[in-house]
Amino acid sequence: MTTARASRTLPHPARDEIRLEGVLHALSDPMRLRIVRELAADGDELSCSQFVLPVTKSTTTHHFRVLRESGVIRQIYRGTAKMNGLRRDDLDALFPGLLDALLGAAARQSARLG
Amino acid sequence: MTTARASRTLPHPARDEIRLEGVLHALSDPMRLRIVRELAADGDELSCSQFVLPVTKSTTTHHFRVLRESGVIRQIYRGTAKMNGLRRDDLDALFPGLLDALLGAAARQSARLG
Repeated sequence: MTTARASRTLPHPARDEIRLEGVLHALSDPMRLRIVRELAADGDELSCSQFVLPVTKSTTTHHFRVLRESGVIRQIYRGTAKMNGLRRDDLDALFPGLLDALLGAAARQSARLG
Repeated sequence: MTTARASRTLPHPARDEIRLEGVLHALSDPMRLRIVRELAADGDELSCSQFVLPVTKSTTTHHFRVLRESGVIRQIYRGTAKMNGLRRDDLDALFPGLLDALLGAAARQSARLG
């Protein structure tokens, strides 16, 4: 692997390094919860630029980083785009039913508060 | 209600003021997650002094306060003891299945990591 290529690979926790507390912290922010809901609804990878959030670009980058470092999403460069995907397989294997319960709770709250 | 009595009543969010993000933040700390697991396992009220946590008393008080202010627990003075109970009814009404999914995930992680 060349240095140039290595610099384009972002660090991720392995499945067994993912901690429940870190996942919950990642999802305790409204913007990050919204990102995860959009990724779950889409079911595929989305580039950072496909998210229109009411925060600055650097704050958006920070939120994606927290989600990646906690093991909630995987971020991969494809050409010049940074693509984001939910780590559903890893989360479902570690904590069966949790992701769906969290998404369900978020949807319910969103419907309630509008 | 007398002033003396009012000062012994701790503020709690009403059910419809409880936010998912706040609940997840409250549970994103290992000590707070442990407190909630113990309350769920006991199923009844426990006084703060019944918890033996590897942190200072003031840190313990802080953790209980975060849990109360997020709506995860209810704290009531009974005589000189501050009693703590899980707000399972409120959480189950707002987010059906979430608390059990969180407790299940915490138990699973605890079994895995020892």
